[in-house]
Amino acid sequence: MINQLQHKIDTKTKPLGSLGLLESIALQIGTIQNTLSPHITNPCILVCAADHGITDEGVSPYPKDVTWQMVMNFVTGGAAISVFCKQHNIELMVIDAGVDYDFPKQTPIIHAKIARGTQNMLHAPAMSMQHVTDAMQAGADIVRNKVTDGSNCIGFGEMGIGNTSSSSLIMHAITGIPLYECVGAGTGMVGEKLAHKLQVLQQVATRHSPKTPYEILACFGGLEIAMICGGMLEAYKQNCIILIDGFITTAALLIAHAIEPNILSHCIYTHVSDEQGHEKMLAFLNATPILHLGLRLGEGSGAAVAFPIILSALAFVNEMSSFEDAKVDGMN
Amino acid sequence: MINQLQHKIDTKTKPLGSLGLLESIALQIGTIQNTLSPHITNPCILVCAADHGITDEGVSPYPKDVTWQMVMNFVTGGAAISVFCKQHNIELMVIDAGVDYDFPKQTPIIHAKIARGTQNMLHAPAMSMQHVTDAMQAGADIVRNKVTDGSNCIGFGEMGIGNTSSSSLIMHAITGIPLYECVGAGTGMVGEKLAHKLQVLQQVATRHSPKTPYEILACFGGLEIAMICGGMLEAYKQNCIILIDGFITTAALLIAHAIEPNILSHCIYTHVSDEQGHEKMLAFLNATPILHLGLRLGEGSGAAVAFPIILSALAFVNEMSSFEDAKVDGMN
Repeated sequence: MINQLQHKIDTKTKPLGSLGLLESIALQIGTIQNTLSPHITNPCILVCAADHGITDEGVSPYPKDVTWQMVMNFVTGGAAISVFCKQHNIELMVIDAGVDYDFPKQTPIIHAKIARGTQNMLHAPAMSMQHVTDAMQAGADIVRNKVTDGSNCIGFGEMGIGNTSSSSLIMHAITGIPLYECVGAGTGMVGEKLAHKLQVLQQVATRHSPKTPYEILACFGGLEIAMICGGMLEAYKQNCIILIDGFITTAALLIAHAIEPNILSHCIYTHVSDEQGHEKMLAFLNATPILHLGLRLGEGSGAAVAFPIILSALAFVNEMSSFEDAKVDGMN
Repeated sequence: MINQLQHKIDTKTKPLGSLGLLESIALQIGTIQNTLSPHITNPCILVCAADHGITDEGVSPYPKDVTWQMVMNFVTGGAAISVFCKQHNIELMVIDAGVDYDFPKQTPIIHAKIARGTQNMLHAPAMSMQHVTDAMQAGADIVRNKVTDGSNCIGFGEMGIGNTSSSSLIMHAITGIPLYECVGAGTGMVGEKLAHKLQVLQQVATRHSPKTPYEILACFGGLEIAMICGGMLEAYKQNCIILIDGFITTAALLIAHAIEPNILSHCIYTHVSDEQGHEKMLAFLNATPILHLGLRLGEGSGAAVAFPIILSALAFVNEMSSFEDAKVDGMN
């Protein structure tokens, strides 16, 4: 199948290889779907939100309340991810994975709260192993439901004040890259503030010595990161295209990849974030991102903005003529 | 106005600057349109096609007939640019600027043939000055008509076997960059074939000594390149957003910029091509491209593929909530 698909791509009316990354994406999706006519149906982005105990240590310039406030902003349509999902007809599902706030029942989100945020990982593991497995299971269940609803392409996004701290520690633990190369400005920690963030995270890193991917998740993770990780693993089992966004969702993928190395065949890396560390995460995964726009917003926004590029890859392979059909001469 | 627009961008519910290049694009378009609510109306891509006498020297792996054959492929919907314009509801206008073929009258293209291709520039200037001014005028007229029809965003694409050769010589003449850095594989000249192409173009460069941008266009250009150049200059006069595609359209912009330096304020660089030389052209213009997808197809295909990214820039600035409106806390 892969040879036939490559032949189909190569005989389109264009110089060989001239659609660059679009050709790789078309080949990847066709391989996942085992078809010469790859298609995306009912794409959705799952945005998991949760709070982080480490925010007590002043690792973010924003107050923790911004997590729940942004969840409300997602569902009322005013956030970046809302706007971009609407632009591209991507279904946006917002999930309370562990926000420290009681959302009214009628709030149009998936109520999957595991706990009201994580513990402060400076003093204790962020999560119990039970919370980790519960969150991963909830993520898997949500993905399975989306697949039952007809989706074969699932993107992941997140909201959680403090979650670049979790992601930096996960990156450090999984990749072995020195912590100072894993810690960045997040939503705006620069200069002395960044030095403080790094100092706090160095203390956290010293305090724990997790061995397995699950233990790394328990010590350093977040409820939204665990839920995304479980969702990604299920999306792979269900043979979905998995859209990877920025620094935090790639941290979730680092865990998922440590559990199931084959998952990478199904991942499309939608962009490289401006958050320091993301480029090295992608290099660790040998991943080529679609966009280089200097985005560092999270929420799944990069996945949404890159989505039409993925559709362009499918459009060319499904709709362009071959040299033969169009009666265009080939190379001399 | 620019300060107010920057303030509007900065108070959206996102970390400051976190939408990267999308913020720059929104600011640029708002500045062009002198508004806090920038919009694109009736976007179109003008694909100018023409033949090149230099193809007699074996500088392309494809026969010259591919130019007219691809024009037919554009209008029947089988080419990359056809597929991508359809995907994004961009009007595609195909223009016979100088194809060495008699298109049937009913072919749905703009019939603006100046000549049946250029002269072989190894032996004579590619065009007379009359042909240059006629082609530029025709491009300007077409753009003015599109603006009258309500378009404020015009992209340019091209088709012309042999036109990377023209573009390399224009690049060399305008920028002073050594010719071997300006000459690339085009549609597929590698190894010895590339060496031959470079050798031919070195002879051409030696033969002519043009001084003005118009003379450079006459000696080395193509009828499609001149028409695009005239179209770009008119698009600037008409205050349109100008979408720059790859190596050949950027060569046309190099000429337009030499004639009217202020044009750059209206240009959006949609991608950096895999064609050797394009990256240096963009650096010469101090331009930041939107996409890095390794495309090298021409036709305006990069402009079409990047178009939804530009719409994302407008969507966020027009549709996202501010911190105040969404009742989201700002930084501590």
